[in-house]
Formats: sequence, C-alpha cells, structure tokens
Amino acid sequence: MRISELAATSGVPAATIKYYLRENLLPAGEHTSPTQASYGEVHVRRLRVIRALIESGVSIAETRKLLAALDDPSEKPSDLIGQAHAAVTPRVDEDLDLGAAEQVVARLGWQPGACDDAVLAGVAQALVGLDRAGFEVPAEVMAAYVDAMQRIARAEIAGIPTDSAEAAVRYVVLGSVLVEPLLLALRRVAEQVASTERFGPKSVG
Amino acid sequence: MRISELAATSGVPAATIKYYLRENLLPAGEHTSPTQASYGEVHVRRLRVIRALIESGVSIAETRKLLAALDDPSEKPSDLIGQAHAAVTPRVDEDLDLGAAEQVVARLGWQPGACDDAVLAGVAQALVGLDRAGFEVPAEVMAAYVDAMQRIARAEIAGIPTDSAEAAVRYVVLGSVLVEPLLLALRRVAEQVASTERFGPKSVG
Repeated sequence: MRISELAATSGVPAATIKYYLRENLLPAGEHTSPTQASYGEVHVRRLRVIRALIESGVSIAETRKLLAALDDPSEKPSDLIGQAHAAVTPRVDEDLDLGAAEQVVARLGWQPGACDDAVLAGVAQALVGLDRAGFEVPAEVMAAYVDAMQRIARAEIAGIPTDSAEAAVRYVVLGSVLVEPLLLALRRVAEQVASTERFGPKSVG
Repeated sequence: MRISELAATSGVPAATIKYYLRENLLPAGEHTSPTQASYGEVHVRRLRVIRALIESGVSIAETRKLLAALDDPSEKPSDLIGQAHAAVTPRVDEDLDLGAAEQVVARLGWQPGACDDAVLAGVAQALVGLDRAGFEVPAEVMAAYVDAMQRIARAEIAGIPTDSAEAAVRYVVLGSVLVEPLLLALRRVAEQVASTERFGPKSVG
C-alpha cells in the first residue's frame, strides 16, 4: 500500500510516518518507482508498537533502542529485560546512597549484582522522594509492596514464551514497559474498593 | 525567616517560591513590613510536599487541588482517595468501552459504583493501549496483577491512621500519588531478580 493508505490503516498521520522513517524507527518501504514506495502489514504492526511505546512516555531515542532489541531475537531474556528497563528508567543522581534501597529489596532475594545499578538507583530515588515529602511508608505496607511485586515478577517471568525468540523478545520488551499504566490503574481501583470496604461508600457529589 | 533563607533551607530557588506564592500553592508569609514577609517551618514542609508532587508529574492546577484537600481534614478518606486519584488520573476518551475493564476488576470485588468512572476508565485505557500494541497479557499474569494490587490496596487502606484527620489526609493524598514511582522501581528490580532465577545471570558488558 502507499503511505496515504498506511496512514489511513494505522491511524498515524502521513507526516508522522515520514518522521518515523527518517528517524529509522520504521523500515523503508519497497521502492516501486524512484518516488514511490510500498508498505505492508509489517509496517502497520510496527507503527502500533511505536505509538504504544511513545504514548507510554518512551523517547524517540529509547524507542529506537527497544525496536532494535525487538529485531534481534538472539538476545538473552535477562539482557533484554535490562535493556527495556534502561529505556524507561529515569536517570538519577549518581551519588545516591543505595543502602536503604538495598535493605528494601533484600526481601526479594536481591543480592549485589542481581540487578542493574540504575534499576536499584530507581528504588533509592523513589525512597528519597518520599522522604523529602516527609512521607513514611509503614513497615507492613512496604512489606506488602515488596511481596506483591515479587509475585508479579515471578508470574511475568514464568510467562515468557520459550518456543520462539521473537515472541520472547516481544513479551519482555512490551510487557515490562506497556504494563505500567495498567498496574497503576488497577491499584487505583483496588484502593477505592478497599476504602469503601473500610470506611463505607463515598459521599455523593 | 526571609524568602532568601527559606530558599536556602528548602533548596527551592527564591523565584520558584515566588511563583508558588502567586499560584496560591504556598500560604503568604507574615508581613513584617510593607515589603517584607516572614516564613516559617510550615512553609518549609509545604514546599517539600509541592516539590514531591510536581516531581511526580502532577500539574500545578492538580497540586493546588491536592493541597486544598490536605488543608481540609474534614473530608472522608473515601472522598480524599477519589480526589487524589482524580488529580493524577490521565484524562481518557469519553466513549471508551468499560466492559473489558469491568471484567478484569470484578476479581477485586468491584461492582458498579464501587469506584469512580474515571479510575475504571484508566484501566480500560491501559487495556486498549496493550491491545493496540498487539500485546496480550496471559490470564495467569493478569490474575497475578489483580491479586497483587488487591493485597497492596488492603495493606494501604488498613494503614490509614485514624487518630488524626490531618495525618489521615496526608497519608492518603501523598501515599496514593508519591508511591507510584516506588512500585514501578520495585517491579523492575523484582523482574531482574526473577529473570536471573529462571535464565541465569545477565551477560557481562
């Protein structure tokens, strides 16, 4: 199909598609004449993934890295998870004290070297943010956070398909990034349901 | 203290403090002369909360609403949770189909009216995002997400202090918003640990 049809099929404006082509996020179409190229189903699928990543707040440069990982199914799952996390982990102060974070994640079976420093630093940074706001997470609640995330991670990692490298890569890269809004949304629903259980229904208004 | 001292103590530049004063995020200081005002510990604490909310991606307008809730301890916890969620829940398409989201949250004990529509729509929007990217969450993994969020929410709601309305408000508003980065960071660590358990350590490099 032509670029105008690709735009209509994918719902992504032609100008945006051209931008993705220039940025090498989308592979070039097959040239049917010196000034025209033809696009196929692979472009439609790839556009959906690009939109999903960008709408999740992933930058163009990071999207390019994740797509490269999607295109290289030779990567090990553990390495891929690291790459996906690196793309979405905000950069943090280098001289962050990791001690408190290490103590929190020790409950996960974490030990030195068990995860990327940047990911551990993400926990440290989040703890600093809470501390600065003067907010202390009660010990039982922190324990519930850690246990819940361990259950989630184990279910996710157990679910990594091993029959096809491509499927594994797709699952890991998209699953680690795109699921974040779902988890936060589910938590909000769960909090409102649990609050109604404890305090009764909300006032009408 | 003067505004310059408040800036030094809080680490927030004086120009930013003046902006927060103009935006009514921060209460005015006590006037000591027609051109000078004096600030106290209450301003330092409030500045920390403002910074924490804004660094979590909450807008100025939403921060103002959350601070108003913090200042009105007469609110019921269930109402406050709704306000905090409303401030951080991204606006979603109005004509979103909520059916799939309702099915997912039914496992939480959710029933019609048990949470704000906007919060339920957040789940629906997240599901649409995954679907568009062609990513299907396996049923066992989805069940793990829902169960984990239910455990988290119950621990959080059980931890709401009831001895002081002010403490309750603080816990609810800050806890529901500021804890999000911590949860996502913990999930990343847990995923890397679980991945190493299943697939062995990452490649060095």
